[in-house]
Amino acid sequence: MFYQIRRNMSAAPKLVAVAESRRFMIDCFKAVKVPQAYAEDQADLLVGADYRGHFSHGMNRLEMYINDLAINATDGAATPKILKETPSTAWVDGQNGLGAVVGNFCMDLAIKKAKTVGVGWVCAKGSNHYGMAGWYPMRAMKQGLVGVSMTNTSPLMAPTRAKEAALGTNPLAVGANATNGDRFLLDMATTAVAVGKIEIQRRKGAKLPDGWAQDPDGNNTNDAELGFSTGCLYPLGGSELTSGYKGYGLGAMVDVFSGVMSGANYSTKVRKWTHAGADTAADLGQVFIAVDPNCFAPGFEERMTDFNGRLRNTTPTDPSNPVLLAGDKESHGMNSVDEAGGIQYLENQIKTCCMLAEKLNIKPLQFID
Amino acid sequence: MFYQIRRNMSAAPKLVAVAESRRFMIDCFKAVKVPQAYAEDQADLLVGADYRGHFSHGMNRLEMYINDLAINATDGAATPKILKETPSTAWVDGQNGLGAVVGNFCMDLAIKKAKTVGVGWVCAKGSNHYGMAGWYPMRAMKQGLVGVSMTNTSPLMAPTRAKEAALGTNPLAVGANATNGDRFLLDMATTAVAVGKIEIQRRKGAKLPDGWAQDPDGNNTNDAELGFSTGCLYPLGGSELTSGYKGYGLGAMVDVFSGVMSGANYSTKVRKWTHAGADTAADLGQVFIAVDPNCFAPGFEERMTDFNGRLRNTTPTDPSNPVLLAGDKESHGMNSVDEAGGIQYLENQIKTCCMLAEKLNIKPLQFID
Repeated sequence: MFYQIRRNMSAAPKLVAVAESRRFMIDCFKAVKVPQAYAEDQADLLVGADYRGHFSHGMNRLEMYINDLAINATDGAATPKILKETPSTAWVDGQNGLGAVVGNFCMDLAIKKAKTVGVGWVCAKGSNHYGMAGWYPMRAMKQGLVGVSMTNTSPLMAPTRAKEAALGTNPLAVGANATNGDRFLLDMATTAVAVGKIEIQRRKGAKLPDGWAQDPDGNNTNDAELGFSTGCLYPLGGSELTSGYKGYGLGAMVDVFSGVMSGANYSTKVRKWTHAGADTAADLGQVFIAVDPNCFAPGFEERMTDFNGRLRNTTPTDPSNPVLLAGDKESHGMNSVDEAGGIQYLENQIKTCCMLAEKLNIKPLQFID
Repeated sequence: MFYQIRRNMSAAPKLVAVAESRRFMIDCFKAVKVPQAYAEDQADLLVGADYRGHFSHGMNRLEMYINDLAINATDGAATPKILKETPSTAWVDGQNGLGAVVGNFCMDLAIKKAKTVGVGWVCAKGSNHYGMAGWYPMRAMKQGLVGVSMTNTSPLMAPTRAKEAALGTNPLAVGANATNGDRFLLDMATTAVAVGKIEIQRRKGAKLPDGWAQDPDGNNTNDAELGFSTGCLYPLGGSELTSGYKGYGLGAMVDVFSGVMSGANYSTKVRKWTHAGADTAADLGQVFIAVDPNCFAPGFEERMTDFNGRLRNTTPTDPSNPVLLAGDKESHGMNSVDEAGGIQYLENQIKTCCMLAEKLNIKPLQFID
């Protein structure tokens, strides 16, 4: 949710090895009684987001998860349970477990079904914030499958023509392999922008572009402070004139597939967002789909490579600004971390880690010398 | 594609009964050797679009289909063929048949599979323009299922940062029943707007809003004439600043699921759009998905009713402009036709019908007295 701004620091940046970031987060989770395997699931997801440059969905969220676990708003030891099954579907109760634990469980089930009958479609209720939506399709892609995941979230999007929020940022993610490690990996919120982008403008004292956020009367606002405090984001597409009702429709679609279908909370039934941790179970709904492309035309990955190339090689408007494919930014993020030899966290993030280490009595986060 | 403007006509409007519009279109198709059942499939789709107020996708397209059939660019007698099957999937060759024939065949197959194993996922290659994307989910909804369909189309959308088109308007449609005939029915192109909306501005001599269309250099244009002639629509979301890359990602996702997965044409391999009919087979790709909501939490339709109400009842910005749900505009369109007692076509459309009746030697379109 809350984006981090990388400031120019006078001192040399403190880098954290990917393995050390993971170790630290596992230790944090274990300190609030999360079993080893589940702590690893959750830490892999968070460090995976940082590695890909999605800092908002990485260690940035650690404190929130720890808070939720500490007050038992999330049950870190809970194991998801299958409530109903058919050859291609399953209905799962996440039992208020950690988002990554529920998500991995459901996607693994979907993968198993896809390998047997071609498609696996698994809906979970009783889940929690599941992090980067693209994490779960990647799990299916490792098995040569096409993966999809969607989740509902706390209300932050105003339906077109409305002045109050009734849907979340409700992301969807879709991933498909091409050859030689290339792939298509879409991971997007169905709002025009994430709250974090508004926060960045606010910190900069800059105006918001049209189509990002509404004021309390339901009109477009360019005032970042007002946009942030109102908490009514425009759906993808912005105003009605620029087809914001399509983004609103997509956000609703995500909620139908994740919240309504699973019997979880949905729309305004979902609790309000809080960075500090909530005192009630979130009962979020999610859906995980795996499809075996070999059930259709042979040569899928070869065609994906050609498809990706056609998009990336479209003539750019500005030759210094190449055309990207969904997922390319994340690949660049990973390359940057690999080149630097570690993840560069913000000073504020590092302070939070120091505080957490002390509070939870674990080994502090170590830096690369 | 081409929107129709309802002008104020001095004479009383000429109304056409829904059944008569259907009769006329069936006769047209039969005149170019389409078998009765397939002529009905295609006419039902077109009159269904007109009935719902989607005039661009209704009888407006008749001439294009007839042209394609007359020169055998589409094979009106072709029967789709299953190439490969699993319990939850099928790969179909549309054999260059009419879009509605291929679409109905595939969705019926998906429905059958969903009823057996929970999900049916059917991909077709060798298809043609399949009309209103929402038509196929409606078929699944009649069976108590949730339906999805997507199709690729001729290149008209420029990827973010590009100055040439590499994806079509690539629509997706999703439908789910609520109780008492209410439902959620999303049917949207993944471009910001359809070409027809640009044509309307052009006819009016009005400017285009930002985020609709590009000029030949890849920049935003407000010049409707230039936007129309360039044929590079912005994806949903508009420019990069307003997250147009999400709409671009969605358009690509539709092509992955419809074109790439089915082994049909995709991206720039799809033939250029022509209203007059083309001289090569389109080989479009499509996907049809049916899901049985009873495989998940019981009471799906009751929750959909509550969900729909929560969205429609959000406080409106302008109380005279109520908040709508995806599909509400189409319901209003049907009510208008029912109240008027028939469909009011444009004068130009009626002229085209006269011309077609003469050319094909069939009974002209009749009006309500």
